[in-house]
Amino acid sequence: MSSNRKIRMGMVGGGQGAFIGAVHRIAAAIDQQIELVCGAFSSDAERSLASGLEFFLPAERCYASYQEMMEKEAALPADQRMDFVAIVTPNHVHFPAAKSALEAGFHVLSDKPATLDLAEAKELSKIVEKTGLLYGLTHNYTGYPMVKQAKEMVAAGELGKIRKIVVEYPQGWLATKLEDSGQKQAAWRTDPKRSGAAGCIGDIGTHAENLAEYISGLKISELAADLSSFVDGRLLDDDGNILLRFDNGAKGVLHASQISVGEENNLNIRVYGEKGGLEWHQYEPNTLLVKWLDQPTQVYRTGNAYLGEAAQLNSRTPSSHPEGYLEAFANVYRNFADHIRCLLDGSQPSAHVLDYPSIADGVRGMAFIEATVASSKNNAAWTELDI
Amino acid sequence: MSSNRKIRMGMVGGGQGAFIGAVHRIAAAIDQQIELVCGAFSSDAERSLASGLEFFLPAERCYASYQEMMEKEAALPADQRMDFVAIVTPNHVHFPAAKSALEAGFHVLSDKPATLDLAEAKELSKIVEKTGLLYGLTHNYTGYPMVKQAKEMVAAGELGKIRKIVVEYPQGWLATKLEDSGQKQAAWRTDPKRSGAAGCIGDIGTHAENLAEYISGLKISELAADLSSFVDGRLLDDDGNILLRFDNGAKGVLHASQISVGEENNLNIRVYGEKGGLEWHQYEPNTLLVKWLDQPTQVYRTGNAYLGEAAQLNSRTPSSHPEGYLEAFANVYRNFADHIRCLLDGSQPSAHVLDYPSIADGVRGMAFIEATVASSKNNAAWTELDI
Amino acid sequence: MSSNRKIRMGMVGGGQGAFIGAVHRIAAAIDQQIELVCGAFSSDAERSLASGLEFFLPAERCYASYQEMMEKEAALPADQRMDFVAIVTPNHVHFPAAKSALEAGFHVLSDKPATLDLAEAKELSKIVEKTGLLYGLTHNYTGYPMVKQAKEMVAAGELGKIRKIVVEYPQGWLATKLEDSGQKQAAWRTDPKRSGAAGCIGDIGTHAENLAEYISGLKISELAADLSSFVDGRLLDDDGNILLRFDNGAKGVLHASQISVGEENNLNIRVYGEKGGLEWHQYEPNTLLVKWLDQPTQVYRTGNAYLGEAAQLNSRTPSSHPEGYLEAFANVYRNFADHIRCLLDGSQPSAHVLDYPSIADGVRGMAFIEATVASSKNNAAWTELDI
Amino acid sequence: MSSNRKIRMGMVGGGQGAFIGAVHRIAAAIDQQIELVCGAFSSDAERSLASGLEFFLPAERCYASYQEMMEKEAALPADQRMDFVAIVTPNHVHFPAAKSALEAGFHVLSDKPATLDLAEAKELSKIVEKTGLLYGLTHNYTGYPMVKQAKEMVAAGELGKIRKIVVEYPQGWLATKLEDSGQKQAAWRTDPKRSGAAGCIGDIGTHAENLAEYISGLKISELAADLSSFVDGRLLDDDGNILLRFDNGAKGVLHASQISVGEENNLNIRVYGEKGGLEWHQYEPNTLLVKWLDQPTQVYRTGNAYLGEAAQLNSRTPSSHPEGYLEAFANVYRNFADHIRCLLDGSQPSAHVLDYPSIADGVRGMAFIEATVASSKNNAAWTELDI
Repeated sequence: MSSNRKIRMGMVGGGQGAFIGAVHRIAAAIDQQIELVCGAFSSDAERSLASGLEFFLPAERCYASYQEMMEKEAALPADQRMDFVAIVTPNHVHFPAAKSALEAGFHVLSDKPATLDLAEAKELSKIVEKTGLLYGLTHNYTGYPMVKQAKEMVAAGELGKIRKIVVEYPQGWLATKLEDSGQKQAAWRTDPKRSGAAGCIGDIGTHAENLAEYISGLKISELAADLSSFVDGRLLDDDGNILLRFDNGAKGVLHASQISVGEENNLNIRVYGEKGGLEWHQYEPNTLLVKWLDQPTQVYRTGNAYLGEAAQLNSRTPSSHPEGYLEAFANVYRNFADHIRCLLDGSQPSAHVLDYPSIADGVRGMAFIEATVASSKNNAAWTELDI
Repeated sequence: MSSNRKIRMGMVGGGQGAFIGAVHRIAAAIDQQIELVCGAFSSDAERSLASGLEFFLPAERCYASYQEMMEKEAALPADQRMDFVAIVTPNHVHFPAAKSALEAGFHVLSDKPATLDLAEAKELSKIVEKTGLLYGLTHNYTGYPMVKQAKEMVAAGELGKIRKIVVEYPQGWLATKLEDSGQKQAAWRTDPKRSGAAGCIGDIGTHAENLAEYISGLKISELAADLSSFVDGRLLDDDGNILLRFDNGAKGVLHASQISVGEENNLNIRVYGEKGGLEWHQYEPNTLLVKWLDQPTQVYRTGNAYLGEAAQLNSRTPSSHPEGYLEAFANVYRNFADHIRCLLDGSQPSAHVLDYPSIADGVRGMAFIEATVASSKNNAAWTELDI
Repeated sequence: MSSNRKIRMGMVGGGQGAFIGAVHRIAAAIDQQIELVCGAFSSDAERSLASGLEFFLPAERCYASYQEMMEKEAALPADQRMDFVAIVTPNHVHFPAAKSALEAGFHVLSDKPATLDLAEAKELSKIVEKTGLLYGLTHNYTGYPMVKQAKEMVAAGELGKIRKIVVEYPQGWLATKLEDSGQKQAAWRTDPKRSGAAGCIGDIGTHAENLAEYISGLKISELAADLSSFVDGRLLDDDGNILLRFDNGAKGVLHASQISVGEENNLNIRVYGEKGGLEWHQYEPNTLLVKWLDQPTQVYRTGNAYLGEAAQLNSRTPSSHPEGYLEAFANVYRNFADHIRCLLDGSQPSAHVLDYPSIADGVRGMAFIEATVASSKNNAAWTELDI
Repeated sequence: MSSNRKIRMGMVGGGQGAFIGAVHRIAAAIDQQIELVCGAFSSDAERSLASGLEFFLPAERCYASYQEMMEKEAALPADQRMDFVAIVTPNHVHFPAAKSALEAGFHVLSDKPATLDLAEAKELSKIVEKTGLLYGLTHNYTGYPMVKQAKEMVAAGELGKIRKIVVEYPQGWLATKLEDSGQKQAAWRTDPKRSGAAGCIGDIGTHAENLAEYISGLKISELAADLSSFVDGRLLDDDGNILLRFDNGAKGVLHASQISVGEENNLNIRVYGEKGGLEWHQYEPNTLLVKWLDQPTQVYRTGNAYLGEAAQLNSRTPSSHPEGYLEAFANVYRNFADHIRCLLDGSQPSAHVLDYPSIADGVRGMAFIEATVASSKNNAAWTELDI
């Protein structure tokens, strides 16, 4: 089967008015390697249709449910049917939709967290393995070129043995009880049924956890967490402070918040080894500060020839023209689509093609969430990740 | 004619290996409102075909020349032929390609500068007027949301009467004689036949000029310029320092450089009025500093509800997730495509749809370049723009 | 007794080659209200003399020990003898020197931490109370004008009820075993006999603790600490990560480090309330970021008329000419000297004069250190401060 | 004559309420090498006395005029009389006071500009030469450690041949007609009789000129200046934009402003050579950005061992504890006092001791001011410095 065509994407969720669905569609579109061919954009059939028409889809490929989509797409000729499913719903639909897609023979690229709880994640992992299909997870922050540069420098030993990691994800948008105002994003994120056992920690704490493990190449072995719900009547945590211990003996701090007034999406990380340190902020994502024992700090910037291959391959403009969140997100899509293309071609994916978050990251994320909630309930007792 | 379809784009230039062509294609793709349907990607027929196939185009719409493209596309049925032509060649082809497209009945979105010299620009302006077709120019930096916020605040009088403007575009990539190394971008930009009368000033100085006039709503009335070619044997200027006088009595400084070692694409601007000041840097484009007589400086950031409509409409993510160069570029494409869609629909374009650089900006840009070169030859004598 | 004269200072410690002694002398000198009149600059008599002569002191007022200094100064006529003693020795001498001075009738301004352990601090507190003399502690970072501005804004309720505090003091200078190289500063700071029960936490963690309590007006009620000695063979902690709970229900994170390669003295703090947030970094101490729910962040800067009285009184230059560490240190000295002057005059000290760290801060600092060490030994169990 | 004593300073100007007098006194005090022994603090005898008593001076050394001070101090025994005179008056008194001091046998450290006009400066230069006494000028910004580091790196050829210099000094405090409000600082600075031929350019433009020449080691050979008085009724320029040409062929831009609303004292400079570039901002004076052709930018910071000798000798704290404006000012005083001490000792001053601005800088500063004013009157015609 020739791969000289765009990779075809179906979407679950992401109808009119959704935030993350639009982000996924842009991310898929940027590199012109993927085309949206169908979708079950809403559990409301009419709304799904209206959304699909807005995206210039034919009515017959705007489905009323993901179940219908899997069934009907599977029945289409191979040169028409979608190649993969992007899942961009609230958390509680991630697992059933992914399961349905995989069992119908479609690769899956899912928004995070992978599932509603750890048990589901472990089950999903088995399904992925059984079907032999591809599964990607949009821990999109690992898509930034300078995050990849950081990972590469740690892996090459430039910092020496890692000792300390500080990772933060402060936001302020839930400092008031926004979920009572009808704001849709706030409503589902603070609802245990749709969001899972954790609020802030599930929504953004997992991004911080994933980023720390991605860059350092280490695994969190245990943690001590103090979660809070500062806003009266909120059902889930809106702030969390966590001590970390990593599998190589490194220590760390992770804190995430949705009540840190005035903070936007200030994900940032600092990693310190025996010989050097790294600092990266989403606020200015094209910069990576590189620190040394006895030499001046260096300012690594995207689009420069001195960067490693991973950073080079994952940026699109020269000389530090600023790239951002959407391009980082697009890198996940691009690599995932390239992997599908390799399967179509029967070619071997390079390490760079394989560089997108997997179901293993998804399982770790859910284990992190459950350990965090358990530790906090136990007054911040040290708790291991149940992998 | 229904507009419930994507707008169809043909491209002149931008084949394999070109920098700006890839940028234009991404900018066109981001909002999923435009599809690339054909191109004359290179003056080499074989290369044009190879490029087009890489972009998943059918061979019959990969043309050997822009002349062939205009002719054959014009002959296609209305529901197939391209709506507009994107011109992404070196400067000397801008005018003939635009003329050819307009005369064949196609709207044009051209890379800047509009033409090779001012006479061409004035002629092009007449052609645009005569054909009644749309003409857009990718002075892409005006596409940044915070640049639009700045323009809106000045226009609303928040700063009072404007007194001083400082605008800079320093780069360092031509600090050595890169054009001798075979680097394609350097080669044509330093060649008067392909670049025009100015090097640095034509390539990036015009962006600075356009940005200053866009934000301030003022026009440069005269200038005094001191251009240099610091690198031995270089045929065009690689650095320029310019004093500005604006039509309302404001004064300014514009300096641009390609020999400022270590500078990337550090376009930045400061505007000072009687009551307030503004500062914006492409380096961190999602931030606009707003300064006041007796109050603390404010940090305006993209994706916040306190911003004006223009900034809101021209960003795609909430709470200051960083957006960058490609999204700013995409805003030019999006507004231009929306304008075409209005024509297809017979609807009235809003002020926001019309907010993209026009042929008038193109003429001013060329007048700026020629005034600058003339002033510099005349030992920085004050020189008016010949509009 | 007239106070129309400079306040007279004697110094314990701070002979040639010492770092912090020189800082104290500069801090005392800046405002020209204090003169150094005598000292026991070293436990080595010859070195003490050599140091004193370098400071232009007469030989007879260069003492061989602090005991000698207290005795001989007390015997001098009132119009000659020192008014107060500055103690700038390693930690283990703080208590005995302060006790000796107070019992001889001299006010004391001591470097921090107040004593070697909590028991000493409590005893010292009683001595201060009994003697009725003044005792100040150079938690110098609270001397920064923008730190005072922050405190004033919190106290005025501008941020609403405080919910979260993040305070950090990362350094990198002890990332290798510097104490084995003969470096004097490293040697005593890593030696339990001279430094006390904690290394990093005693040296800089207490500054972070003091800063958080100073700005917020809250007290840490309990903490959970994970201390590490990353450098092989080091006897004290060189890194610590601590969860905090405050007496109003606020939560926090404090982390300090001496192994964070490439970090200098990057003390910083963020405080979030229900309505606003604050951010301050020693790296750029003349700036205070003030964050709001629905408005742009404001950049408060020293030397501006919009600041409160405390910030105004504690800076010396207009319009944000940068002031630094020495001026902040000098503010502690200035206020302390002003307090002595009030006693000499019989006048009432204003709240601003009283704004310097006291023995109560010293006791809390030692309680913090002991709670941290105890918690860490108990695997980061929650531990209350023993006040 | 032994120099084992403090250097004795008399002051002209700087009485109660003056800004720059207080700065000079702090700068002199910081290193405890200088003592204030007398002063003619005001042309009003009563006010001079009141000021002196506030500084703890005996009444008999508080003089009613600088003429009286020179006469009476010269008559004192050598072991009592002042060593040098600090002149901190408005500009029009600089020359007569300096002349008077030198002719009475006293060294002079003067605030800038050296004199009211160029003719005076040239005459003063001759008087300095004739008397053989020391003359220093407080172009204080050259006292910053990182400015000295920059100078040292340029001199060592690390940047290669210098091509371009951009230097700016924007302020906003005179954006309204503050001189009409009774504000004393504004009043004399906008009065030609007391300020000289230039306002903004004389007050701060000369600092920018001096900084550019100090760091680059180059001389401005000619300039083209466009000065403005934006505030209605103001008698002197409040803004100036200037093109520069240097004696080695380098080009530059200098702009200074007092109407750039919201700017504080944002002196900054960028210097670009064939191999590297430098960037320094007073806003964050402890940082020097060092830029390279093909390597990441480096962040040089004060208090680090990798710095050169000049930076090391001119900072007082380790590891980038922030130092500021007063310490930079103090470096001028310290070096000047050290030079006097060398004369007292009969020892040879090192290059570092001699590193303070001289009368030659003063002459160049006045020539710069006069060339700027002349050029601007001549519609920005190129004008040489009359040295």
